[in-house]
Amino acid sequence: MQIRYGVIGTGALGGFYGGMLARDGREVHFLLRRDYEYVRENGLRIDSVNGNFRLPAVNAYVHARDMPVCDVVLVCVKTTENKGLPDLLKPLLRSGSVVLLLQNGLGVEEDLSARLPEAEIAGGLAFICSQKNGPGHIRHLDYGKLDIGSYNVKNTAVLDYMINDFRKAAVPAELSKNLQLARWRKLVWNAPFNGLTVVMNTTTDRLLRHDSTRRLVREIMLEIIHGANRCGVGLKESMAQKMIDMTLEMIPYAPSMKLDYDNRRRMEIEYIYSRPLETAAGMGFDMPKVAMLESQLRFVEESRY
Amino acid sequence: MQIRYGVIGTGALGGFYGGMLARDGREVHFLLRRDYEYVRENGLRIDSVNGNFRLPAVNAYVHARDMPVCDVVLVCVKTTENKGLPDLLKPLLRSGSVVLLLQNGLGVEEDLSARLPEAEIAGGLAFICSQKNGPGHIRHLDYGKLDIGSYNVKNTAVLDYMINDFRKAAVPAELSKNLQLARWRKLVWNAPFNGLTVVMNTTTDRLLRHDSTRRLVREIMLEIIHGANRCGVGLKESMAQKMIDMTLEMIPYAPSMKLDYDNRRRMEIEYIYSRPLETAAGMGFDMPKVAMLESQLRFVEESRY
Repeated sequence: MQIRYGVIGTGALGGFYGGMLARDGREVHFLLRRDYEYVRENGLRIDSVNGNFRLPAVNAYVHARDMPVCDVVLVCVKTTENKGLPDLLKPLLRSGSVVLLLQNGLGVEEDLSARLPEAEIAGGLAFICSQKNGPGHIRHLDYGKLDIGSYNVKNTAVLDYMINDFRKAAVPAELSKNLQLARWRKLVWNAPFNGLTVVMNTTTDRLLRHDSTRRLVREIMLEIIHGANRCGVGLKESMAQKMIDMTLEMIPYAPSMKLDYDNRRRMEIEYIYSRPLETAAGMGFDMPKVAMLESQLRFVEESRY
Repeated sequence: MQIRYGVIGTGALGGFYGGMLARDGREVHFLLRRDYEYVRENGLRIDSVNGNFRLPAVNAYVHARDMPVCDVVLVCVKTTENKGLPDLLKPLLRSGSVVLLLQNGLGVEEDLSARLPEAEIAGGLAFICSQKNGPGHIRHLDYGKLDIGSYNVKNTAVLDYMINDFRKAAVPAELSKNLQLARWRKLVWNAPFNGLTVVMNTTTDRLLRHDSTRRLVREIMLEIIHGANRCGVGLKESMAQKMIDMTLEMIPYAPSMKLDYDNRRRMEIEYIYSRPLETAAGMGFDMPKVAMLESQLRFVEESRY
């Protein structure tokens, strides 16, 4: 099966994953906004730790209505833009098309499905350090693995084909049998590091260098792990220490929320904090430190405008 | 009984309360450090909402050993200076002298008593907005009430005389039968506002203007109230809302910890956060949000040097 891909949001994530597929010969259609003119003229440039490359000519669009119907649409915008998703997606979908939400947090599939009931949706977690350096210019710093899982895809064969495409394009990809598990697992890292680097205006390595905040990171991770378990998603407590050790070995890196904050973009508080809190609370479980971080982030977000 | 007063720490607190007593004709001996020369030459100047005054000649000392033995010693230094207290106090005390710790937090009396077992100690909470504007120059902005309670004073008559002296000197003062109650009660305000204004770099009114942080302030207050109750100190939940309402009516005011932080002085994390946490933990009670604030404050304190 030859999959036709659409990419909504051609930035650090969409530019990289879509670009890797296009380089490998897949048919990829990119939706852009600000960078449309530039990319139509100059294509995409991807500077990757695994080798730099250029795509001089890509299928670039500024309106979703001009794009062809796709088999798979990679949604690579921030969750803060999800309000506009149904309108962007409608022209791209036929019966059997799959929308892959490459987004952080909890509840993105539920919300899209409620607003676009006919959509077949999968979720994906990207473990990647990448950033947009300029128009059509992506810098891939490290990692890149995709964990993909079905939310309500009827014929999951398309997910297997897609994973095969990613692997052939040198993107490590894995089918997760339990999307919620994958989402909660990534939250174990995202919940402490995204919020604390913003509120404390610091980096992951500095947080881990001080006893006080290293302990706090661990406690927040454990709240998420226990919250996940209460929601029927089995995560082990030992994950917390493993993730801290892994982070100590990473090059100091600003989490996506810190990059958003520093670049004056809206922060993904809703799906990374509020929804997990609501989900756990629905099972009668409190996560007081996660809740406190959410309150502090809302204050930061509201008081800077 | 004519009480001879000593004042350790002639700043915003000691300068005001000692100055009020001296103006009313009490015998007061002031220990100073940096401001000694200036105050010996020029005395004290107190600009108070209740009327400005000057004390052109005060008993000023730079060494405790030069001071006379006192009946009551008002300790008005920050708790971050408490390590040096026993050496400063020894020359001032006779049997029956009372040390009044006008300090914030929990555990200051216990710690001093452990290191100076012969001392008779009382504690006091000052509800005051005042600041030092320059050498020997105190600015009293609002409030001023003292809540005073015995820790291990044998003959508590001296506390009554002292309270009488304060009242005659136009300082509202009250004898608290339960010092721990008074300390926990003040913590209900101090715990949220001191730490959050530092960590969020803001003011009390801004914290209360946002739903997220107003809720957080309330939750931290409730943790302290529940912690106090677990420690056998009866506080009502309704206190939280009352204190929030009171704060909304106050002129926007930077809590003492925020002033300390902004002026690059050490913060009173130990007695305002760590000791209440340990005390409650000793009774099997967790205060997760207070603990998180402590961790964040330790990070702030450690990472600025």
